[in-house]
Amino acid sequence: MINITLPDGAVRQYEAGVTALDIAKSISDGLARKVLAANVNGQVWDATRPINEDAKLTLLTWQDKDGQSTFWHSSAHLMAEAIESLFPGAKFWVGPAIDRGFYYDMDLGGRQITEEDLRALEKKMNELAKQNNAYIRKPIAKRDAVAYFEEKGDEYKLDLLQGLNDGEITFYTQGSFTDLCRGPHIPNTGFIKAIKLTNIAGAYWKGDEKNKQLTRIYGVTFPSQKELDEYLHMLEEAKKRDHRKLGKELGIYTMDDDVGPGLIMWMPNGTIIIEELEKLAKETESAAGYKRVVTPHIAKESMYLTSGHLPYYADSMYPPMELEGEKYYLKSMNCPHHHKIFAAEPKSYRDLPYRIAEYGTVYRYEQSGELFGLMRVRCLHMNDAHIYCSKEQFADEFRAVNEMYLKYFKIFGIDKYVMRLSLHSPEKLGIKYVNEPELWKETEEMVRQVLIESNIPYIEVQDEAAFYGPKIDVQIFSVIGREFTLATNQVDFSQGRSFKLQYTNADNQPETPLIIHRAPLGTHERFIGFLLEHYAGKLPVWLSPLQVKILPISDKFLPYANELRDQLRKKGIRVETDERSEKIGKKIREAELSRVPYMLVIGEKEALEHKLSVRRQGKGDVGTQTVEEFTAHILEEIADRKSGE
Amino acid sequence: MINITLPDGAVRQYEAGVTALDIAKSISDGLARKVLAANVNGQVWDATRPINEDAKLTLLTWQDKDGQSTFWHSSAHLMAEAIESLFPGAKFWVGPAIDRGFYYDMDLGGRQITEEDLRALEKKMNELAKQNNAYIRKPIAKRDAVAYFEEKGDEYKLDLLQGLNDGEITFYTQGSFTDLCRGPHIPNTGFIKAIKLTNIAGAYWKGDEKNKQLTRIYGVTFPSQKELDEYLHMLEEAKKRDHRKLGKELGIYTMDDDVGPGLIMWMPNGTIIIEELEKLAKETESAAGYKRVVTPHIAKESMYLTSGHLPYYADSMYPPMELEGEKYYLKSMNCPHHHKIFAAEPKSYRDLPYRIAEYGTVYRYEQSGELFGLMRVRCLHMNDAHIYCSKEQFADEFRAVNEMYLKYFKIFGIDKYVMRLSLHSPEKLGIKYVNEPELWKETEEMVRQVLIESNIPYIEVQDEAAFYGPKIDVQIFSVIGREFTLATNQVDFSQGRSFKLQYTNADNQPETPLIIHRAPLGTHERFIGFLLEHYAGKLPVWLSPLQVKILPISDKFLPYANELRDQLRKKGIRVETDERSEKIGKKIREAELSRVPYMLVIGEKEALEHKLSVRRQGKGDVGTQTVEEFTAHILEEIADRKSGE
Repeated sequence: MINITLPDGAVRQYEAGVTALDIAKSISDGLARKVLAANVNGQVWDATRPINEDAKLTLLTWQDKDGQSTFWHSSAHLMAEAIESLFPGAKFWVGPAIDRGFYYDMDLGGRQITEEDLRALEKKMNELAKQNNAYIRKPIAKRDAVAYFEEKGDEYKLDLLQGLNDGEITFYTQGSFTDLCRGPHIPNTGFIKAIKLTNIAGAYWKGDEKNKQLTRIYGVTFPSQKELDEYLHMLEEAKKRDHRKLGKELGIYTMDDDVGPGLIMWMPNGTIIIEELEKLAKETESAAGYKRVVTPHIAKESMYLTSGHLPYYADSMYPPMELEGEKYYLKSMNCPHHHKIFAAEPKSYRDLPYRIAEYGTVYRYEQSGELFGLMRVRCLHMNDAHIYCSKEQFADEFRAVNEMYLKYFKIFGIDKYVMRLSLHSPEKLGIKYVNEPELWKETEEMVRQVLIESNIPYIEVQDEAAFYGPKIDVQIFSVIGREFTLATNQVDFSQGRSFKLQYTNADNQPETPLIIHRAPLGTHERFIGFLLEHYAGKLPVWLSPLQVKILPISDKFLPYANELRDQLRKKGIRVETDERSEKIGKKIREAELSRVPYMLVIGEKEALEHKLSVRRQGKGDVGTQTVEEFTAHILEEIADRKSGE
Repeated sequence: MINITLPDGAVRQYEAGVTALDIAKSISDGLARKVLAANVNGQVWDATRPINEDAKLTLLTWQDKDGQSTFWHSSAHLMAEAIESLFPGAKFWVGPAIDRGFYYDMDLGGRQITEEDLRALEKKMNELAKQNNAYIRKPIAKRDAVAYFEEKGDEYKLDLLQGLNDGEITFYTQGSFTDLCRGPHIPNTGFIKAIKLTNIAGAYWKGDEKNKQLTRIYGVTFPSQKELDEYLHMLEEAKKRDHRKLGKELGIYTMDDDVGPGLIMWMPNGTIIIEELEKLAKETESAAGYKRVVTPHIAKESMYLTSGHLPYYADSMYPPMELEGEKYYLKSMNCPHHHKIFAAEPKSYRDLPYRIAEYGTVYRYEQSGELFGLMRVRCLHMNDAHIYCSKEQFADEFRAVNEMYLKYFKIFGIDKYVMRLSLHSPEKLGIKYVNEPELWKETEEMVRQVLIESNIPYIEVQDEAAFYGPKIDVQIFSVIGREFTLATNQVDFSQGRSFKLQYTNADNQPETPLIIHRAPLGTHERFIGFLLEHYAGKLPVWLSPLQVKILPISDKFLPYANELRDQLRKKGIRVETDERSEKIGKKIREAELSRVPYMLVIGEKEALEHKLSVRRQGKGDVGTQTVEEFTAHILEEIADRKSGE
């Protein structure tokens, strides 16, 4: 007998060899019908795999991320089975679950997949799914696995096998399809009730453009048709939320051929959002002891040779301007200018930490093909700052930056994010990374400790550091599933030396400061693009370019409407009157479409009694308030930067 | 007998041939001793010149600008007399009075003038002045004048004579020196009691560098030694007020060789001033119905070809960057980008006036030799805006801009300024100016009418308009006598067409808007440079980077000092504690030097009773206040943007 500990702490006894599915059944048949996989002692397992020793067990269903991910991985196998059936001779590379669904990369011998093929594959998958074929796990010796794929002539799986050792190889089979796979999988194909193949793309084998291009088919599956319908609805929604569409509709930004690609011009409504964000940043940074600076957008070549951006970063910079025998570059980052400001006056340990911030505009050359709305641009307004500190001060400063992120995320209702700790790669020291192995070790450990002590979940990735030190990138996910690197927090033990930055320490000796590069709100471009999609254009009141629209029922009430408007304006509220002689229905409809958060309908009663008939965008009439009540309420909503109603 | 009307309206009768000096004597001998010249029927005359017909007369003394100017012009003649005496053979070109003093350009046959020469000349001038030689006016026939200078071999005066007609030529003689001169002059050299030759410079003949270089000697003279002493003190003061010196001392800005000449980096203290100025501008412009935009710093060549800046303005622009087969330029003005924003959405007459503002950063190429501190730079943060309006709206809009200037001037205590109405030159239509003779006439008259109706004093200057329309430049004078073009207000009837800007008028027809370009606060660079000199670094509290310094008498009072600091900071006051263990005397001295407006000295009594011992910069102890009293007082001073105590 073995002891199985359930998530609520209850311990039950079962015979060794029991499966998670058996255990589910012993609790209830209803539960058993939902079990997709199980977490056994911290590892995700097949629900049908025998458990032979004491274990902590969590049953995984569609409600669990690991449950969904297993479901989609199994769906990739189901798709492969359908492909093998419809296009014999197909060879498969890898087929993982992704954030929403799955894909499989395959070699179809040059065959082009069409939309009709996708529909035919969906049909086939549905047929196969209904057969309720079990996913059967089979450990296999490396020799036998190699023999199997040599027999099939499958160079891709043979390549994968090269990296695996005896004892860690398993095959999974469902129906007629067998794959090299470490699993886990769902119990059987019958769980897959709704299937949508969404996209076809090309993908170089192993991501290397020198290799053959494979066909990648994306799909998504669900345990019920209802869930698929909801998902497709969300895709529609994503189109509606597209920041490029909203940006135009709401008068946020524009671009022009005579200005140039990727160069955003912020229109009045976009500029209001910018100013509100800058106000937030300035308040937050001022309270955190930052000072502000303003620096030019150009500098001589010599500055970027010192910083090391030239020649390494030259491809991402605009070409130089030649003047009086000197080359001038548009800045692609603010740091060198900030270093010069640090150096402009002598510093002592009493001046540290020296924190200087700037909403600096930088210019980066992105390939035309990579430009995308506000997300990939060439001119970036960056929420930038540099902190110069001693080693002893580092942990506190770095932690404070992380906490600033989290504070911002709360304001914007961002709850899906991942902190990535990007480390150097020891083999690339002196090539991609400053050749200071000890400093790398030391600073990476400093950053890691800060994250651990702050209890911030993070993942570590090798070979993604900045050239001057390790960094944390914050990846966030928009409601429509888009992933962004939004913010960054970087250690720099290198540029301080390059720029000969010094401070006098308490022992009256010169010392080089550590530098933290940080940008918690990223760039205006990317952040506002994100916010438009995040809020579907229905920005919180504090960010709304127009906060209140007054809608007089007829011209007769225009004088009172404008008196009210002026009264609200004096309180700093952004308000306009719809002065047109249109029917009130049309006025309301258009105001709703413009996404103004509050509408005040003014008719006989309102004008006489000085009461307001208040409408909230998307919610209709929310009741009658006095002018004082409404003003107090909206001012509080603005001052608290509330995320929504 | 003739009638002489005095400024108070009194009419007196004199015999024809009476002089202004005679009339002064008839009033009082004291007055006569002060008379330097006279305004006779609107013209400035010698006080000793006979008046032969009825006249309006104003006697001019040292209190009048025209009196001073006559005094200095006569001093230039006195200097020439001394030069002729010490350096025989000197030939003279022109010797005008200037804003403060005079100069004379001369050909000394290659002789270099030294500081000792200047002292010798001053001595000689003093000797000659004491001779009380009269300045004697003598009309002369052109023939005789030419003969006189041919005899002397003076090619310079002969050149001047070429441009003059018979009947308008006069000679002036004092002592042994005779000059071709239209006058007027003071009665005699005895008025000149104090003399200082200040500077030697080179000046190309007629300002053309192909010509010979002449020697220019600058000087200044006064009717008493006391006034000279005061003037020399003011020069000292001017050195102290030099914004370059103050800018460094107060940590306002810095420059760096690696960034480039004329490219200002604003340090934390300078950035606070920038942010306060922008806050003022944004508040003012928001109340005046402006919207804000943000545009990139570069654009394609095609944009500047459309605007007409290329090729005409190319010399003042940075050279292009070549990318993907396109030339990109750093913008030297914001207008083209703003026009694109106007054009981004369809406009109707209901959208006009459309006012868009931006603290846009522009880049202009100034020759290295012309760069000067913050006054002549290559990167300019401009208080820019463009107003798109109909012809009917023009006068109101243009007037409102002028009124905005005057409002700003009041805030900054600027009372010396001149509005210059810059007009086109009909001969240069199609060359320097857009070839639209009718539109020039019409818009120039529109601007003139606005100025007249607003009762704003102005002067008209030909051939100084922008290429797209007439403009008003505001010239201001700093307390140390420096003159700046601070602000500009321009009409543009041309770019609207070039950019095909249109709005739908009330008759549903397309129409081109007029454009007003305006920058009432000029650029941050020039305006802050001006303010530093204007206030001698003692900025008003609202502009002071640090507003309050708390000075604990000993470390014992540090906790209370910092508690007080945090309390004031919460109110938005910029305050620091001097935490050093220094003597209070030293702390006060250094705080005074740093020009922080308020100092709070904290000792036993203050800490116990929570009262403040308040010091005002430059004034010492100004009494004891409760924390509440002090806070209320300083917050009011900040909110009202008071100019000083």
